[in-house]
Amino acid sequence: MAQQKKMVEEITSMEEDFAKWYTDIVKKAELIEYTSVKGCMVIRPYGYAIWENIQRILDGMFKDTGHENVNMPMFIPESLLQKEKDHVEGFAPEVAWVTHGGSEKLEERLCVRPTSETLFCEHYANIVHSYRDLPKLYNQWVSVVRWEKTTRPFLRSREFLWQEGHTIHATAEEAIEETERMLNVYADFCEKYLAIPVVKGKKTESDKFAGAVSTYAIEALMHDGKALQAGTSHYFGDGFAKAFGIQYQSRENKLEYPHQTSWGMTTRMIGAIIMTHGDNNGLVLPPAVAPIQAVIIPVAQHKAGVLEKARELQERLKASHIRVKLDDSDNSPGWKYSEYEMKGVPVRIEIGPRDIENNQCVLVSRHNREKTVVSLDELEHAVGEKLKEVHDALYKSALENRERRTYACTSLEEITKTLEEKGDGFVKAMWCGDEACEDKVKEVTGVGSRCIPLEQEHLADTCVCCGKPAKYMVYWGKAY
Amino acid sequence: MAQQKKMVEEITSMEEDFAKWYTDIVKKAELIEYTSVKGCMVIRPYGYAIWENIQRILDGMFKDTGHENVNMPMFIPESLLQKEKDHVEGFAPEVAWVTHGGSEKLEERLCVRPTSETLFCEHYANIVHSYRDLPKLYNQWVSVVRWEKTTRPFLRSREFLWQEGHTIHATAEEAIEETERMLNVYADFCEKYLAIPVVKGKKTESDKFAGAVSTYAIEALMHDGKALQAGTSHYFGDGFAKAFGIQYQSRENKLEYPHQTSWGMTTRMIGAIIMTHGDNNGLVLPPAVAPIQAVIIPVAQHKAGVLEKARELQERLKASHIRVKLDDSDNSPGWKYSEYEMKGVPVRIEIGPRDIENNQCVLVSRHNREKTVVSLDELEHAVGEKLKEVHDALYKSALENRERRTYACTSLEEITKTLEEKGDGFVKAMWCGDEACEDKVKEVTGVGSRCIPLEQEHLADTCVCCGKPAKYMVYWGKAY
Repeated sequence: MAQQKKMVEEITSMEEDFAKWYTDIVKKAELIEYTSVKGCMVIRPYGYAIWENIQRILDGMFKDTGHENVNMPMFIPESLLQKEKDHVEGFAPEVAWVTHGGSEKLEERLCVRPTSETLFCEHYANIVHSYRDLPKLYNQWVSVVRWEKTTRPFLRSREFLWQEGHTIHATAEEAIEETERMLNVYADFCEKYLAIPVVKGKKTESDKFAGAVSTYAIEALMHDGKALQAGTSHYFGDGFAKAFGIQYQSRENKLEYPHQTSWGMTTRMIGAIIMTHGDNNGLVLPPAVAPIQAVIIPVAQHKAGVLEKARELQERLKASHIRVKLDDSDNSPGWKYSEYEMKGVPVRIEIGPRDIENNQCVLVSRHNREKTVVSLDELEHAVGEKLKEVHDALYKSALENRERRTYACTSLEEITKTLEEKGDGFVKAMWCGDEACEDKVKEVTGVGSRCIPLEQEHLADTCVCCGKPAKYMVYWGKAY
Repeated sequence: MAQQKKMVEEITSMEEDFAKWYTDIVKKAELIEYTSVKGCMVIRPYGYAIWENIQRILDGMFKDTGHENVNMPMFIPESLLQKEKDHVEGFAPEVAWVTHGGSEKLEERLCVRPTSETLFCEHYANIVHSYRDLPKLYNQWVSVVRWEKTTRPFLRSREFLWQEGHTIHATAEEAIEETERMLNVYADFCEKYLAIPVVKGKKTESDKFAGAVSTYAIEALMHDGKALQAGTSHYFGDGFAKAFGIQYQSRENKLEYPHQTSWGMTTRMIGAIIMTHGDNNGLVLPPAVAPIQAVIIPVAQHKAGVLEKARELQERLKASHIRVKLDDSDNSPGWKYSEYEMKGVPVRIEIGPRDIENNQCVLVSRHNREKTVVSLDELEHAVGEKLKEVHDALYKSALENRERRTYACTSLEEITKTLEEKGDGFVKAMWCGDEACEDKVKEVTGVGSRCIPLEQEHLADTCVCCGKPAKYMVYWGKAY
């Protein structure tokens, strides 16, 4: 128990210092390790296994919606990056430049891709000629680089892993439909697999992706009341097609510009999981992406029959496709309890001599430490049900946190006062659509526009800032 | 049929121009597309789907042998690359250098990883302290960059996709065992899944990986008699550990240096598949990695019931986990036959009105166009068996090609004469172990040492070059 106590003491509590609590978990749960490459990190096996589960599920959802994976070069020649004006303005200030190959200076600088629209456009120009070539529904799983000044593991790093979907369509309608479809895929993924409730919405003009006609996003609220953008989906219209000279012969034999989209989700989702479900004992993982869904801890494992029974349970659960681990190391059960709580394993299974006598074991949920005694005859079913229960409970609790921290306000004063009294959260308030008001809300209250939610509410007739007629209800917040 | 003829005409025959035949297939089977990024390529959906199958199978083999996936940064600071002398000498001349982040010049140049030993070593130094921390059995799936002067799709490109395994062990014995284990995993993978027979061997001193004590490789022989290195496995001893200051406390409480390995396989395997199995009608894919294992082509599909029946077959094969595609497009059956021959789909299923009447369909193997009429009642079984047959036939034919083109020689004159008469291939000849002789064999005969095979044969007592006592039998050849 001395060891157990020691481990728990090692994490800063989130009430004391949320940022420190976060980095403590990231390190102690062995998700990452720092490197001498500034702003970049090692994703360790336990962290990467979460990402592999995210990849597997999302990739399945992309394939079910007709997408195919491809792989583009990691470099973009400077002249190619410059072809679309808004795009280069948005990204050039934050790219890494390759200037030499071996000992030779390159004739043209190459940037390490910050995103790959320009490469996809060049490719489309080569392969799209007729309406028969459309649509192309592509995705790639790669890493990208953005030269950020301040970085934090998973949330903002100079290199991060992501998927970037890129599609091209004959008509604007089809492309808009795709943009919305992928926003919904992201929202479904967050809610059904990560147990993270999200708000679907549109970004304001000032917050759009560089080169997009419109950017949609899903926004989640973290434990500390700050917002996290969890995925984005962009509609490009035919702007990129015009800049890159992509044209196709229509059914009516006319030369037309196609319409494009792109959408992405990143390793930042691991940060979102930590800050949505974690607690002062460590990580809490949603069962769908947990590398270990259930850990078996034998009690009094030196006694005859205990390890054998534990191994039997392990085999049974494996056979029912539950990701299970048996910890038969020499560490004490108490130490193991802390260890797997730190690692956020959703369900712990305790089995000792008395349990075996009674043909039972004890299931303990990670998030609330609730204990359930179950008959060994019903083990597979009981663990399966418990995992579903845990998912539902995590989702419910995250939703409650968000609702408790979402404040409808009708004046700047009310926003300031509410945030002071209740702490950070989402502020719902009306907006006239004027960028000057958007800036002023941020300046005065500290919260920026997160999105114009697809589900609009009518809170007032006028803009929270200028008093002119309101166009939209906006979610405002401080963001990661 | 006009269209069918056109497609076949479009590929250069391999007898006419092997290099052109290769690039024709790569393009016409839609595996890749060129880009404006010199020496880099787009891997298109059909090519990437082959890689996904390779990844899935290999990743399973790695996990079955206890390995875990991680992710390292893509950049290596110059000072880190320089820590191991041989390693930096080998790689520095061919790396891409990042010198600027945004508009600022970096204090220290970063290279884009050509391989990640140095990053793994830095990480080990952080996390390995005690014998209890060993071994670490890691792997990552990433892309790497080597600034090659001349490039060819899949075979040699400036950026390529690969997996790199990196492991660290308490003892030399364990590390050597791991090096050999992974060589065997690669050989098994090539033979059982890609139907490519390989020679397992050790590289000579001059051909070792930069920084390795010894390098093992598997070598395959292509249609044209040239060798292709298909995978390598390196034993590092404690050289990297000493250079990076990695030490651990042993069970006996002594400070020891651990021993390391690394091993890799790349997208070049797609090139190996093309040049081992392809023919003058296009690609021929081994069933285990074919994106489409069976394509259903309806004959007279406008006739009542044909498409319905074709869809029923598709559903049945899908349910038996066969990767099946139904092509119900407006193209003629003849055009479709050529199309899927070009794409190397192992089995074609023809179904027309008369077949339906007789409760049968026709299976056609891609590699030999052999037709088998099968009862629809036995469809799943018949297709499954046919796929196994195809694998075995591809392997057998590749092995026959290699055996036909492997020549045992006992003098330099015999080597030259044999290669002139019979064409390129593997030359088996004895060697004294002296680098001067190795160089001279290449200079005089044009073939370099490929490997010292693990299965040695005694062809003569003396070196093929100098006449001094022979130490090894070596495979020599021209290589990709």
